[in-house]
Amino acid sequence: MPSFTVFKGSKDGSIHESKTEKPELHGDQVFLKITASGLCGTDLHYRNQDMVLGHEGVGVVESTGPECKYLKKGDRVGWGYEHDSCGHCRECLTGNETYCPERAMYAMADLDQGSFGTGAVWREAFLFRIPDGLSDEAAAPLQCGGATVFNALHTYRTDPTETVGIMGVGGLGHLAIQFAAKMGCRVVVLSGSDRKKDEAMKLGAHEFIAMKGAKELKVSRPLDRLLVTTSAKPDWNLIAPIMASRATIHPLSVDEGNFEFPYMPMILNGINVQGSVVAARAVHFRMLEFAAQHKIEPIIEKFPMTVKGITDAMEKLNSGDMRYRAVLVPQ
Amino acid sequence: MPSFTVFKGSKDGSIHESKTEKPELHGDQVFLKITASGLCGTDLHYRNQDMVLGHEGVGVVESTGPECKYLKKGDRVGWGYEHDSCGHCRECLTGNETYCPERAMYAMADLDQGSFGTGAVWREAFLFRIPDGLSDEAAAPLQCGGATVFNALHTYRTDPTETVGIMGVGGLGHLAIQFAAKMGCRVVVLSGSDRKKDEAMKLGAHEFIAMKGAKELKVSRPLDRLLVTTSAKPDWNLIAPIMASRATIHPLSVDEGNFEFPYMPMILNGINVQGSVVAARAVHFRMLEFAAQHKIEPIIEKFPMTVKGITDAMEKLNSGDMRYRAVLVPQ
Repeated sequence: MPSFTVFKGSKDGSIHESKTEKPELHGDQVFLKITASGLCGTDLHYRNQDMVLGHEGVGVVESTGPECKYLKKGDRVGWGYEHDSCGHCRECLTGNETYCPERAMYAMADLDQGSFGTGAVWREAFLFRIPDGLSDEAAAPLQCGGATVFNALHTYRTDPTETVGIMGVGGLGHLAIQFAAKMGCRVVVLSGSDRKKDEAMKLGAHEFIAMKGAKELKVSRPLDRLLVTTSAKPDWNLIAPIMASRATIHPLSVDEGNFEFPYMPMILNGINVQGSVVAARAVHFRMLEFAAQHKIEPIIEKFPMTVKGITDAMEKLNSGDMRYRAVLVPQ
Repeated sequence: MPSFTVFKGSKDGSIHESKTEKPELHGDQVFLKITASGLCGTDLHYRNQDMVLGHEGVGVVESTGPECKYLKKGDRVGWGYEHDSCGHCRECLTGNETYCPERAMYAMADLDQGSFGTGAVWREAFLFRIPDGLSDEAAAPLQCGGATVFNALHTYRTDPTETVGIMGVGGLGHLAIQFAAKMGCRVVVLSGSDRKKDEAMKLGAHEFIAMKGAKELKVSRPLDRLLVTTSAKPDWNLIAPIMASRATIHPLSVDEGNFEFPYMPMILNGINVQGSVVAARAVHFRMLEFAAQHKIEPIIEKFPMTVKGITDAMEKLNSGDMRYRAVLVPQ
């Protein structure tokens, strides 16, 4: 039986090369040759699991199952965090399949498939054609990082007249700055130090706030919305005073603890907190179109798709030195 | 100079009778003869302040200032938590004047005016005509308690097909059950024990959950929305599993601490948390119309509007034995 190379986590966190068999395709399954994969913080969480890692995949269609309808050999496609959903629940029927109670997400199903490898078998229904103008390497980090920040902005109806705060300039943050700026918003970046200021301004930010050691923050206009992309918990007593009435906070980074926000400003200022995951498919397609239209691209560092390349990229991401997203490229 | 009786808090928390001068009315000021006042938990917070207490007022117009436009002597009106707002900011211009940065709310301005007394001077712009069919005593608790729960449901677009959870059967909760039921929603009440079950079902609840000691909660349909009217912090690890994807939580009781909710279910299930205060005026008018239309009335205990009556009512509220809202009535 034919097979392809994949890279898996393991109990001690080391990366291992392995093989996944290529089955006979059934239903709307597609066999993909992987051309690029982003590395996301979530991959670090799962490096101790015996599963194929990677969920920011881009590849080329090699062959299609009997029920495929819209993809054909040679098409460039991406895939991300969600593998499948039930198709008949309220969430699926309203285009919110990322919240389907039976959803199959990264690390929950198909543990022999991922985007770290040379190939993958994936449902056509959960593949996204890459628009012309986006390279494979640029498109990869959009499949999860880009989709997550675009989803927060788009699904919850960010208005172009808003002032949007982006906390953290990393894999997600540096994409969020670009999306919000291209949507017409005034973008305020909140970061620890001034270190990333020039880059943030080049990406489209209008204002930059270094928070470290500040007793009080100053901003030209209060924030109508704030995307939190840092893993460290924000100091809300510092930030709440620069938020507009009825502002929305989007906590985007996954954490084991509690989201905490002081009751009084939440209630007295009508603050909204909106949890969300990656984009549902209709939103994901819009995200790719919008990125291609506006030349929104991640800033990437390339690593070879090998045990060493993945290990090196993970170490750099873990150290906080990645500028700003690693992309693994098969050799 | 003529004056009227008012009841104030004081440093040691005791209630004192005092006099407020009745000024010559200017602008759109209205002089009111108070006929009923609700007692709200917030009044307990401010009983240590030298200020006139009460913000669930109902009265009759005695005289009107030179710029009054719609009220006349003899009209029955209510007033609540908000006294004034700037009228020209974005919040005021969009009908969200409860979030105006210059808003004058209870305990922030006009400390010589309130609803504990025989009279009050109030801006016509912040008075609400009481529809026929609502008695003064029934209308009083709607001015803050009713307005707060109706605002959460109405402003954030509760759909009649939703399952709405109401946590706590007290001054706010017993009104929230009625509003949500009359909006067509399926209403699930979450309470400590079974003690208030019969009353909750009579008020319109469809399902009642006693939480005390429960390791796991069971509900016929997951909650699309949850109004938290208890002062005790909910155990979210117990409650999160019975909430629908993309559900909204409305924390309505003011607390000095932090609102806390576990990150993982918030993000993975797209949970929304919406802070809010009382109703803006357009919503307040709708609330009164809806209450009159559907015979939504508080269950009240009457107390005389005297130092003793107010003190007794406060003690009963504080003990948790009020069923469900005290109304003070001038003798």
